[in-house]
Amino acid sequence: MNIVQPPPAPLSPDLIARFRAIVGDKYGVTDAAEITPYVTEERNLYTGHSPLVLRPGSTAEVSAISKLASETRTALVPQGGNTGLVGGQTPHHGEVVLSLRRMDKIRDVDTQSNTMTAEAGAVLQTLQQRASDVDRLFPLSLGAEGSCTIGGNLSTNAGGTGALAYGVARAMALGLEVVLADGRVLNTLSKLKKDNTGYNLHNLFIGAEGTLGIITAASLKLFPKPRAVETAFVGLHSSEAALKLLEISQNEAAGSLTSFELLAEICIDFCVKHGPSIRDPLSKRYPWYVLMEVSSPRDDARATLEAILARGIEDGIVDDAVMAENLSQRAAFWKLREVISPAQKPEGGSIKHDVSVPIAAVPAFIEEANSAVVKLIPGSRPVPFGHLGDGNIHYNVSQPVGGDTKTFLDRWHEVNAVVFEIVLKMGGSISAEHGIGVMKRDELPDVKDKVAIELMRSIKAMLDPLNIMNPGKVL
Amino acid sequence: MNIVQPPPAPLSPDLIARFRAIVGDKYGVTDAAEITPYVTEERNLYTGHSPLVLRPGSTAEVSAISKLASETRTALVPQGGNTGLVGGQTPHHGEVVLSLRRMDKIRDVDTQSNTMTAEAGAVLQTLQQRASDVDRLFPLSLGAEGSCTIGGNLSTNAGGTGALAYGVARAMALGLEVVLADGRVLNTLSKLKKDNTGYNLHNLFIGAEGTLGIITAASLKLFPKPRAVETAFVGLHSSEAALKLLEISQNEAAGSLTSFELLAEICIDFCVKHGPSIRDPLSKRYPWYVLMEVSSPRDDARATLEAILARGIEDGIVDDAVMAENLSQRAAFWKLREVISPAQKPEGGSIKHDVSVPIAAVPAFIEEANSAVVKLIPGSRPVPFGHLGDGNIHYNVSQPVGGDTKTFLDRWHEVNAVVFEIVLKMGGSISAEHGIGVMKRDELPDVKDKVAIELMRSIKAMLDPLNIMNPGKVL
Repeated sequence: MNIVQPPPAPLSPDLIARFRAIVGDKYGVTDAAEITPYVTEERNLYTGHSPLVLRPGSTAEVSAISKLASETRTALVPQGGNTGLVGGQTPHHGEVVLSLRRMDKIRDVDTQSNTMTAEAGAVLQTLQQRASDVDRLFPLSLGAEGSCTIGGNLSTNAGGTGALAYGVARAMALGLEVVLADGRVLNTLSKLKKDNTGYNLHNLFIGAEGTLGIITAASLKLFPKPRAVETAFVGLHSSEAALKLLEISQNEAAGSLTSFELLAEICIDFCVKHGPSIRDPLSKRYPWYVLMEVSSPRDDARATLEAILARGIEDGIVDDAVMAENLSQRAAFWKLREVISPAQKPEGGSIKHDVSVPIAAVPAFIEEANSAVVKLIPGSRPVPFGHLGDGNIHYNVSQPVGGDTKTFLDRWHEVNAVVFEIVLKMGGSISAEHGIGVMKRDELPDVKDKVAIELMRSIKAMLDPLNIMNPGKVL
Repeated sequence: MNIVQPPPAPLSPDLIARFRAIVGDKYGVTDAAEITPYVTEERNLYTGHSPLVLRPGSTAEVSAISKLASETRTALVPQGGNTGLVGGQTPHHGEVVLSLRRMDKIRDVDTQSNTMTAEAGAVLQTLQQRASDVDRLFPLSLGAEGSCTIGGNLSTNAGGTGALAYGVARAMALGLEVVLADGRVLNTLSKLKKDNTGYNLHNLFIGAEGTLGIITAASLKLFPKPRAVETAFVGLHSSEAALKLLEISQNEAAGSLTSFELLAEICIDFCVKHGPSIRDPLSKRYPWYVLMEVSSPRDDARATLEAILARGIEDGIVDDAVMAENLSQRAAFWKLREVISPAQKPEGGSIKHDVSVPIAAVPAFIEEANSAVVKLIPGSRPVPFGHLGDGNIHYNVSQPVGGDTKTFLDRWHEVNAVVFEIVLKMGGSISAEHGIGVMKRDELPDVKDKVAIELMRSIKAMLDPLNIMNPGKVL
């Protein structure tokens, strides 16, 4: 990846000592082996380096770190669970890593106000579990939930499978505690559903990928826990049929429609071929599949789902469908959805996209992108799947059978360009849920409203005039 | 009200002509009689004055107006339906009024993507109707919906009765078109549910009350239209019981619980006494009432509501309840809720508050506020009612029976101070849904996080360095 940020001056031993003194030597990591997990990531797509990983235990310590960083113009890279997919959490130029993981307290759970206040380093799954323990739902859910942190989820405005009914991470935050570049602490933590006292500040930091300040805590919404969740796996002859089924489902289930995932036939092919103990839930293959879920606080989820499928069959939209009869069958359906990405690996190189278009445009997008990509690289195999209910498609492309992997992957940007052009023509986004990081930074000015880019630069200059907050990311 | 903004220099005839040339003379109003409706408001609480009301017909015209205003340091007061309650839309110092009402086109309705793009001057009720015409719901709903505009709704982040299930105005916006102070046009209009390409800009303008730029259009979310709406009027012995009923209702109905309004007994007293053809829906009086609604896309709303009430009776929470048997009975229940404010008028002066506290704190807030207010002004009569499901209480106080109205109203700020102190102690907001405008501007620095105020000032200086956008409002 092309990263143009100039490397900062190496930190003096004295400055390293001053930073370590803030958190205590134990939590100011300088040992290279201990640093490795903070500067590498699972896919080995990005590798950074850093002389120092700071692991503060309190907001006051984060504030002191920012203040010293500001005084000494030391660049900081904030990091949560280190599961980001666009290189946003990696110190590409030897920056100091500020790991929030030790700040993992749940400060407050209020079941009457339906709120939870948690520190940035709390792991998403821990929050889900804590909500469940008090008979509530924290609906943010994504693949990395066992290790990603709520601070990272908010900094990247994570999406995931719960977004259809409950919205993305942004929709779950009532307020934030944020340490600014100069060490000031902004506190908009709040249990209030309504508060119209002045400008909305917390949304500025959500999705800013740590470039405007460091989220140290958040007040979050809780929801009633569904009593019944019913899941169906549906075979269809076209993506247009899937879109029609979505409309029927929303009209029948409204907010009870909690998942609506689209999968192309090739996804099933790959999963059945390469996934561990994966089998096709239907008796024959179909060009398209939908994995859908209806959740309800009452006992009507199954009846609702049956009504949707009956209507779909009646209207000639649904070719075949099976409903999960028990939890293990439900888990098997979801397993299929989750192994698509790993199941692509044995098929060779994969060029990935995380795009969104208006929901109505999804079928046209897939059709146009498929023919453009195959025209560009004959034999390449589009593997489209994703959150149809959000218009969010993980448009992956596997290399031609028997082709050279490197030759294929070298054309990553060419394929991107072809796909992004179609996305933009349709009023879509080149990053639906993963963010910009360094991966898409250089494309951003070309795809975003010019005035929006100008405002982003003004906001960055206002909040981080010395460019010490995750420099070189996003902008 | 204490408004400290210095009056701008009077506009020269030449400058007035230049502004009128942008919109055409017909839409550059200088006639005093024609100007009156733009500088006065229904309650006669605020009266402003202006030499010129501009009524642009396009975003390009708004941009040209801003550009000229910026070049000539002319202050602009943007205005929608002129229904705001905090003086935010009034030209208190002879500013030019920029009325968006002519820009009322609905640019696009997309029933598959569930989005609608409308210009700022579109009246809320028109948008509701247009959504309904295509079998969708636009859930923003408030008293002024027949005349307020979506631009004003977004600029003030309106709440209303639909917020419990669907959120406030902010939650319904996917993107905005905004004319900045210098005439640049920011375009974040979007039909996308997920878009993580850079900083979130549109939320900065939502709730900014026209002080950062002029919203000219918005892309909005549509929802499935409920098939069945069931309404109940419930008598209870305490506000704690109302809170317990809310919890039961949310657990039973989740997102299908679309209204949960709390009313104190005195509200019913006033309504029955003064409201036109209002009668008490229950056979005897109770200390507290809840007006609640369950909406569903299927035919289960009545069963759900019955289950909630049965559980409430079983748990000793609900003392009496009646469900609307038809549309006119439903309308009668809502009428009761809507005439509370007018029904206070024959009882003399009323000091009003639009506050929110965490939902769990509502009973304690009402109890503490009641005793503090009555201690301050013996004989004064608290009239608390509002959106319990959002923790948003319209905490009104009627004057003592037979007392002097002016003497009572002169103590407005004293009563505010007593109520706000309790609100703040409980982590609440002094403006839940009406905004700051000029009414609460001077209180804002005392109640808001210090760093938040500093950031608000920095943002204002960045976006409107000449202070021409609705000067003297909010900050």
